[in-house]
Order: sequence, then structure tokens, then C-alpha cells
Amino acid sequence: MNGKLIGVGLGPGDPELMTLKAHRLVSGAAVIAWPALEDGESFARSIAAAAIPAGVTEIPLRIPMTVERAPAQAAYDRGAADIAAHLRAGRDVVVLCEGDPFFYGSFMYLFARLAADFETEVVPGVTSVTACAASARQPLTARNEVLGVLPAPLETDVLRQRITESGAVAIMKVGRHLGRLRALLEDMGLAGSATYVERASLPNERILPLAEAPDPAPYFSMILITKGDDPWLN
Amino acid sequence: MNGKLIGVGLGPGDPELMTLKAHRLVSGAAVIAWPALEDGESFARSIAAAAIPAGVTEIPLRIPMTVERAPAQAAYDRGAADIAAHLRAGRDVVVLCEGDPFFYGSFMYLFARLAADFETEVVPGVTSVTACAASARQPLTARNEVLGVLPAPLETDVLRQRITESGAVAIMKVGRHLGRLRALLEDMGLAGSATYVERASLPNERILPLAEAPDPAPYFSMILITKGDDPWLN
Repeated sequence: MNGKLIGVGLGPGDPELMTLKAHRLVSGAAVIAWPALEDGESFARSIAAAAIPAGVTEIPLRIPMTVERAPAQAAYDRGAADIAAHLRAGRDVVVLCEGDPFFYGSFMYLFARLAADFETEVVPGVTSVTACAASARQPLTARNEVLGVLPAPLETDVLRQRITESGAVAIMKVGRHLGRLRALLEDMGLAGSATYVERASLPNERILPLAEAPDPAPYFSMILITKGDDPWLN
Repeated sequence: MNGKLIGVGLGPGDPELMTLKAHRLVSGAAVIAWPALEDGESFARSIAAAAIPAGVTEIPLRIPMTVERAPAQAAYDRGAADIAAHLRAGRDVVVLCEGDPFFYGSFMYLFARLAADFETEVVPGVTSVTACAASARQPLTARNEVLGVLPAPLETDVLRQRITESGAVAIMKVGRHLGRLRALLEDMGLAGSATYVERASLPNERILPLAEAPDPAPYFSMILITKGDDPWLN
């Protein structure tokens, strides 16, 4: 009988924001896979580190960050093949995912390659969006407000329109786009409603007014915008 | 010294989707508060039930669901006063929150009344959005896709525009709006890309093609829409 593919969301970074289920699955795993850049540590693995049992088999998924997609695709193809070999041998494989597996996560690339052939389970995790709001103590959305989650690389005009239309906005993957986003929000008169959050829930977390945010920002940073004058008061 | 107000996200319903931190805080609480309707059980309390210690002091927040806001406001005023009395006596108060405290949560009404006067911590939780995607095994957003979170009571024209502009959509609070939403999505040619998810992560969870969804739907139901032809494959 084949093993099961299990994508496990580990939350935004604080190991204590792992779910009980994630902790149980990682603690009992015989085979784990985790994504990382070509060099360096895996953020996902670092979140789960204390729960990973001794003697576990590890499958590193080293994903090149190149402009062309072919190298990353090839890396996912190889990773999926490594995982499939374990699944066919009857071993479950736990894939470690920072945040949530289906929310801008690399697990989706494995899911697309394996879910048709193998039993698959997805364990949701706390996303960076609500973790940033909690760290910034900035309520996100109440009642009938629209939340827009916007990746920073979108074109400025698209961002402007979506921000205008949403009651609350989380801009992901800020990084080198910080300056452009700050100029846009200043132009829209929203800079005062925007909070910059870096590495939410980690020991080196930083929460700053947008005016004081570093440019460029690290990849794991977010801008939260909430509008209205305390709409949740009523 | 005053106690601390702690809003704790408990996740979408499966007690195992509580975070380790939520479990620790609930297990060690001396005073808990939880929202509920005027009659019946508290969904938030039911998620945490197994972790609630014996002998804990409980503050029920019974919130009337009326068209006028004044009765609910008065209930939050009374609840905040009850909580403040414990905080002033030096006792921490753990407020149980289904999902995430700052994501369409009633905790925001307490936060607005108490956070200026008392130390406050917010513990994020798994939201129903990613829990529904995990249960439906429907990847939400990759790369530069926009996610729109839309409350179902919005006007149909507003919903149509936001759905058109978003790469993925989660429609919250479906309930009695199911028929109107289904007609809209059929008209937009998106009914085939829409999945209905009810009570995600609970034992009585249901996942159905939109065409088969019940009308009216229960309050705790969602419609997920993802577009594009497997954009995460590349």
C-alpha cells in the first residue's frame, strides 16, 4: 500500500504557532521533505526543528531562484520523484511548509505533481497575514469589509485600484518593492494607515510605521493597510 | 499590577488545529471569556473545551443578533466591563476566538474597548479560508495572484467586480446568500471553478460542487473560487 503525502503548514515562524496537528505529524514522521534555496537553511525546517525526530529521512528540495522557470520546475520534478519513491515504498512523507501549504506556498508545486497518484492530506497553518496583524495589533477586517491580499510585484496601477477597493489590504513579498509601495501609499494619502511588519512572530520581528521601513525590505515583510475610523467599534 | 488581555485564535473548528500557544494559554487560564449567541453553546468554547481547566472562571459574552447595533454594542460594553474588573484585580483574561481574533472576529469589539487601558496580546489562529482550501484540496494562490476575501452580504455588482479582478476568491458568511451567489457565478461562467465548503475541519464537514450546495447554506460555509488552468504547475 502506498504512503500518504502530507503537506503541513507550520505557521509564520514562532514554533509555538504550529498547530497541535502539525506538531504531532512532524514528531511522528519517518520521512520529511522541506524547501530551501540552493544554499542555506530552510526556513520551514527551522520552524519545526525541535519537533523533528532523530533518525528521520530528510528530502531537501533545493529550489533555484532564477528568472527562467525551467530550473525551478526541474527541481520540483526531481523532488516529486524522490518523494514518490518513498510513497511507493509505503512510507508517508511529511512536507514542511512555512505558513500555510496552499497560501503562496511551494507545496502547491508538489501537490500538482503528486496528488493525482497518491493519497494527499493538507494541514492548514497560520498565515503571515493574520500573524502580522496580531503582531502589529492592527485589527484586519470586520463585518462586510473586503480583504485584499496583494503580492507586491504587481504593477503600481493594479495595486492602486485594488487598494482603493478593499477595506483592508495585506501586501505580501514587499522586499525590493518597498520604495515604490511607499510612494504609492503616500500619493493615495494612506501612508498613515499603513504598518510595516517584518518577520512576524520571530524574535527579530520589527513593526514600524511605513515612513520608517527599510528600503529595500527583507523578503519576509508585509505592509498592512486598514482604513475607516474604527469601524469595528460599532 | 493589572492582568493582561489575551485574544486567542482557536482555528476553524478541529481542536487539533489550535496552535501550541493557544493550547498552552487556555490550559493555564484562570479566567476565560467566550462569545456566543443569546441562546446555545459557544462555538469558540467548544473548540477549546478539552483544554479548559477545571475551576476556571468563565465570562460568557452573549451577543444578540439584531438588525439594530445598539443591543450588541451594549452586550460588548457589559462584557468589556466584566473583563476589565478581572484585569484590574490582576488576573489575565483569555478570550476564546474561533478562527483568528482579527479576521472577522468578535474579539475586535473587546480590543476596541480595552486595548488602550490594558496590556493586550493577540495570538493568531488558522482562518477558515485556508482551512477550507485544505479540506477541499484546492490550492488558493501562487506567485503574484491576488486573493480577495469577500463577505457574501456585499451587493451583487460589487461581488462581480471583485471576483473578476481576483485570481482566487473566498466568499465568507454564505448562509442565505447561496442562491444569489450561485446565480452570479453561473452568469460569470465560474460555477465550475467554485467549491462549496461547510464546517471545514469539523466531523460534519461537507465539500460539494457549487451546483449541489444547499440553499440556504449554514452560516459557517464558504465558496472558494480559483481560476486559471493550473497556474501553480509552472
